[in-house]
Amino acid sequence: MRVSTRSEVNPFIVMDVMEAARAEEARGRSVIHMEVGQPGTPAPEAARRALAAAMETTPLGYTVALGLPELRSRIARLYGEWYDVDLDPARVIVTGGSSAAFILAFTSLFAAGDRVAIAEPGYPSYRNIMKALDIVPVGLPTRIEDRFQPVPGDLDPSLAGVLVASPANPTGSMLGREALAALIGAAAERGIAFVSDEIYHGIQYGARPVTALEISDDVYVINSFSKYFSMTGWRIGWMVVPETHVRRIERLVQNLFICAPHASQVAALAAMDATEELEENLAVYRRNRALLLEGLPQVGFGRIAPPDGAFYIYADVSDLTGDSRDLARRLLTEAGVAATPGLDFDPARGHATLRFSYAGSTADMEEGLARLAAWSGR
Amino acid sequence: MRVSTRSEVNPFIVMDVMEAARAEEARGRSVIHMEVGQPGTPAPEAARRALAAAMETTPLGYTVALGLPELRSRIARLYGEWYDVDLDPARVIVTGGSSAAFILAFTSLFAAGDRVAIAEPGYPSYRNIMKALDIVPVGLPTRIEDRFQPVPGDLDPSLAGVLVASPANPTGSMLGREALAALIGAAAERGIAFVSDEIYHGIQYGARPVTALEISDDVYVINSFSKYFSMTGWRIGWMVVPETHVRRIERLVQNLFICAPHASQVAALAAMDATEELEENLAVYRRNRALLLEGLPQVGFGRIAPPDGAFYIYADVSDLTGDSRDLARRLLTEAGVAATPGLDFDPARGHATLRFSYAGSTADMEEGLARLAAWSGR
Repeated sequence: MRVSTRSEVNPFIVMDVMEAARAEEARGRSVIHMEVGQPGTPAPEAARRALAAAMETTPLGYTVALGLPELRSRIARLYGEWYDVDLDPARVIVTGGSSAAFILAFTSLFAAGDRVAIAEPGYPSYRNIMKALDIVPVGLPTRIEDRFQPVPGDLDPSLAGVLVASPANPTGSMLGREALAALIGAAAERGIAFVSDEIYHGIQYGARPVTALEISDDVYVINSFSKYFSMTGWRIGWMVVPETHVRRIERLVQNLFICAPHASQVAALAAMDATEELEENLAVYRRNRALLLEGLPQVGFGRIAPPDGAFYIYADVSDLTGDSRDLARRLLTEAGVAATPGLDFDPARGHATLRFSYAGSTADMEEGLARLAAWSGR
Repeated sequence: MRVSTRSEVNPFIVMDVMEAARAEEARGRSVIHMEVGQPGTPAPEAARRALAAAMETTPLGYTVALGLPELRSRIARLYGEWYDVDLDPARVIVTGGSSAAFILAFTSLFAAGDRVAIAEPGYPSYRNIMKALDIVPVGLPTRIEDRFQPVPGDLDPSLAGVLVASPANPTGSMLGREALAALIGAAAERGIAFVSDEIYHGIQYGARPVTALEISDDVYVINSFSKYFSMTGWRIGWMVVPETHVRRIERLVQNLFICAPHASQVAALAAMDATEELEENLAVYRRNRALLLEGLPQVGFGRIAPPDGAFYIYADVSDLTGDSRDLARRLLTEAGVAATPGLDFDPARGHATLRFSYAGSTADMEEGLARLAAWSGR
């Protein structure tokens, strides 16, 4: 049967690494998971309790397309709590994870053939979702001096849009308020739509990241319950759009998705008040980060920059290999440590980088470092 | 901010009717819901119990992209139980409802500008999803003599694909084995991709519907846990594709969705063995169908054809109105009965049709008929 060219997308390499790790484990080998970008913790207990109760009392059928009104209100309130931003709940759209939000944002904003800029290194699926939607991703090679983030000079007026992530995956780097405002201003001046991926907000090790909504209402903001709220597998997130775009997005959701998973919406609402448990998770990431920043250089991965947020360390391994896929394969089979080759994040330069995730337990991080030490002979 | 033309999709009118019904209820009015295509029943008890248990023992993080292996195997086994088809689990892909499956199928098969045929009347989102993906939907006006289904003569070789639903929404009509085989054969001969929407399988009132997989392996089959398995809000479904397409779809899922909701996958697996409860639901639909087939003609809706499956009755109301939206509005505000205007399903002829859903309780159907009787003065 026929196939389309646009479906010739690259694999999301980290998922292939996960599959290889699973196969190793099926062969009886122990694997320390430093490849996967997800917390090892479950959804907060309060979230699970809320869903268990709801399953007894409601059929959990379709919700309205934009999401449960009480969840949209609670998300709006979060912007007051976190950023002192007064947000109208009518602008909040509950989505099936940030994945669904990207599909909605890209189809809402961009026509086939439109060019949309993304940072390299960056989340690989940006590029692949765009390709599947006939949008042309334009990789912007970023520099460590710019915290691996785009700069206003990158935004040439032929672009239809730009997507920025802060904290970023895989580097954990953040944009300060001035740098973000400069990008948003440059985009607005040049008629370039601005999409802000804020899914790692809440996971930071110094100042809170700035939301694009502190700077402008004329942006799309995408967020998720996956990371800080520890709900990856629940496929639940949200988007904030300009007021004039809400009805357009509503029609897209009605047709493309009907609604986000009802059970996940119920759980997410309760998760938002589980602050104590979530801050305990954050304390673990903080410990893991300190452990790896000290330990990785001792086992041969010295070229790293301290991440501001998220739970990744992006290492320059050009002194070890010119083939990060091969290095990742060897780490998995020889050391029993799974890590993600940089090619997932930067097609041009990722042959010489690796991403380590520290979203797992502290015990796992200690064991991972010990294995890397034994493997490297240091 | 800029917007794209492709996001100018029509609203899914039934969801606007749901919203109007909700507003009536908020004003203190009672509404009988005959608009919405979802069971009033929750997920089977076994499904909810399985999830409650899993929430205590596993973090429910991301699953592998194609879905939990045990769920894929169980779905493959269903094809043996229902159709005596021996299906390789490797060809089964778990999706975030049939909604995600349509996005995956359409991007996998069709390029921007490709023309894809759909029956009119039919599920309105087919057309709107295609539009958002820059695919050109080609409505095929169907005839009651053909059970509102396309015929081989409709498939002109300029088409890239055809999508067929049996049982169909909104008519409940089914394609017999010969008619389905003739369509699949004609499509194959002319190089037209064949997509079979089978989401109402399991809800039938005579012979079991035929799956396209009984006829050919070179088709895409889309199914869902929403209807027979009573899990609409859980956003969980599946797709069966030719073996050579699995890796392509896997890459698309990795990037577009990561995975289907884990909690819903756990619940769905258990739902598949809840036969007794599901057959009780089916018995209710059967009673409701009989009630409406007898009662609707008595209250002025006499031009109906008995549905073979699903839980809808599609009524020709051309003797009552030339504006089905207005009639639906009057039924809601004057009679307290919500029904869906045919325009949702047939842009050309739906101004003179209405869809009644009988997925609710029998008591609701009785009350709905009583209200329609009072309203019509019969």
